Amino acid sequence: MQLVRDIGEKGLLAKLQRFCPVEIIGDDGAVISTLPGHDLVVTTDVLVDKVHFSLRTTSPEDAGWRAVAVNLSDLAAMGATPLGITVGLALGGEVAVSWVERLYRGMNQCLQAHNTAILGGDICRSSVITIAITAFGQVEPRYTIRRQGATIGDAIVVTGVHGASRAGLELLLHPELGQNLPQSDRTSLITAHQRPQPRLDVLPLLKQITPPIAGMDSSDGLADAVLQLCRASNVGAIIERQNIPVPSVFSHWLTPQQALDYALYGGEDFELVLCMPLVQAQKIIQKLPHSAIIGTITANQNVVLHDKSNQNPDQLLTFERSFQHF
Amino acid sequence: MQLVRDIGEKGLLAKLQRFCPVEIIGDDGAVISTLPGHDLVVTTDVLVDKVHFSLRTTSPEDAGWRAVAVNLSDLAAMGATPLGITVGLALGGEVAVSWVERLYRGMNQCLQAHNTAILGGDICRSSVITIAITAFGQVEPRYTIRRQGATIGDAIVVTGVHGASRAGLELLLHPELGQNLPQSDRTSLITAHQRPQPRLDVLPLLKQITPPIAGMDSSDGLADAVLQLCRASNVGAIIERQNIPVPSVFSHWLTPQQALDYALYGGEDFELVLCMPLVQAQKIIQKLPHSAIIGTITANQNVVLHDKSNQNPDQLLTFERSFQHF
Repeated sequence: MQLVRDIGEKGLLAKLQRFCPVEIIGDDGAVISTLPGHDLVVTTDVLVDKVHFSLRTTSPEDAGWRAVAVNLSDLAAMGATPLGITVGLALGGEVAVSWVERLYRGMNQCLQAHNTAILGGDICRSSVITIAITAFGQVEPRYTIRRQGATIGDAIVVTGVHGASRAGLELLLHPELGQNLPQSDRTSLITAHQRPQPRLDVLPLLKQITPPIAGMDSSDGLADAVLQLCRASNVGAIIERQNIPVPSVFSHWLTPQQALDYALYGGEDFELVLCMPLVQAQKIIQKLPHSAIIGTITANQNVVLHDKSNQNPDQLLTFERSFQHF
Repeated sequence: MQLVRDIGEKGLLAKLQRFCPVEIIGDDGAVISTLPGHDLVVTTDVLVDKVHFSLRTTSPEDAGWRAVAVNLSDLAAMGATPLGITVGLALGGEVAVSWVERLYRGMNQCLQAHNTAILGGDICRSSVITIAITAFGQVEPRYTIRRQGATIGDAIVVTGVHGASRAGLELLLHPELGQNLPQSDRTSLITAHQRPQPRLDVLPLLKQITPPIAGMDSSDGLADAVLQLCRASNVGAIIERQNIPVPSVFSHWLTPQQALDYALYGGEDFELVLCMPLVQAQKIIQKLPHSAIIGTITANQNVVLHDKSNQNPDQLLTFERSFQHF
């Protein structure tokens, strides 16, 4: 098996350049144009082996796909269409060249699905595989989606089901779980985890309604997204627990409380959580399968989980249950 | 001593946000505008502890300064004025919070010296400190400096002395060296290594001459830069060894061969190596202290080191002696 140290930095670069558009290779930087009247949007993420992915349980293609999807989702969360990404890769000489090529193949699969590409990068030596991706997008200023700007009375829209990625991870980690699930459902949950879809497809729809829209993505969990939006906008929210869309298969496998936990705290669903007037929200959810209005922005600066069937008391959502590094 | 794990991800983020302009904090991405008619230039670098810097011999301020300088130098090498950077930082919970703050202070010192700022970032956990920086700049398309485009007969200009950074590193690693050097010279060589200056100051000068100019920076060494330029442009070069500017103090300390080696292969001088018609080159070097015309672009696809005093035979420069990772 050919290792990175066998071919050296320049050998590896030569192999990886096949994954870049030919016109951008081999200079100190990449040159990109934005459309006239558009702002540039930039977002960056660092992924570390054993923290964000595991070489043991994640295929290199999936690690690459997910690394790109995280960043494209951040662009979608700003309302921005992708222009490209740069990739900084740190890895040891003992890594197989084929592993690196498969990583880049996965990145490219996600990029190509969204009509964009790797525009530049850097590789260097490290004892821990680290992938640093910066993504660039463009947006017409009035369509920029910001966290601040959620307004009292706004409907809170989610663009799809929540909890699927976490459920897929559980099935991967504990194959003995969910034995009664149809294979197609297992596969679809696992795919939700391995190949999350940034919701760039929602952006054209959002251009059909009147801006501004406040919002972010739910990559750190739905609860975290609502809390972040409320904090940035100095408002609160009431969330109807029955309105949160979850995969239909959850009812055959999880208790209602487990399903709710996965949906609120599972994370990595990469849906958009958007705040807009109710009339606009109703237009959006009609056109977007699995989307839903899950609640309302309130003046009270708490985020309350409400049960309209009155089987559960109101519950306050807090940042404490959200994921923290270190 | 307060450690990163004591304050967690959100605590560290809160401390680091003090180093960012207040208007850009707390969304999924940063929004930037380029001037009308300008292209965006993007460049990225990954720095890894013990490979690119050493916690033992490098202060966190210097590590931060250098990490930024590398990227701003890449922008300068493209002819682009900085718009800002993003910083992806991976580190362990056992790192002192003060170390991280000093790192960001050093980054900010370099950024502020060039009227730019941190626009966004990401922090995450890793057993190896890794700093991934992506820098954004803007350039009027006709002033873009590319590696390709060096033309036969062009003069090759360097914007300053070479070898100083390498000499400074030697003095840091071996304090017993150069005991006969005046303290001011020692300090200035060490500063060249610890606080390299990206040559963004050269760009306004370059606007006074007729584009296009081919070029790159000499961060991987002067020999590497000339070789890269020639390869990208399908040309060769003849370099006059006596014309390569080195710090004047070298003559009191190093043999001519050592001085030449430091200048050609030392690296990290972050000067610009530019190819342009001789008339233009003469205008530039008149206005730029320590700059020099070091040679000429030739049709023969070799890079030849020539000695006009005829004490040394012609010598071919090759990529083999340049630095490779892995």
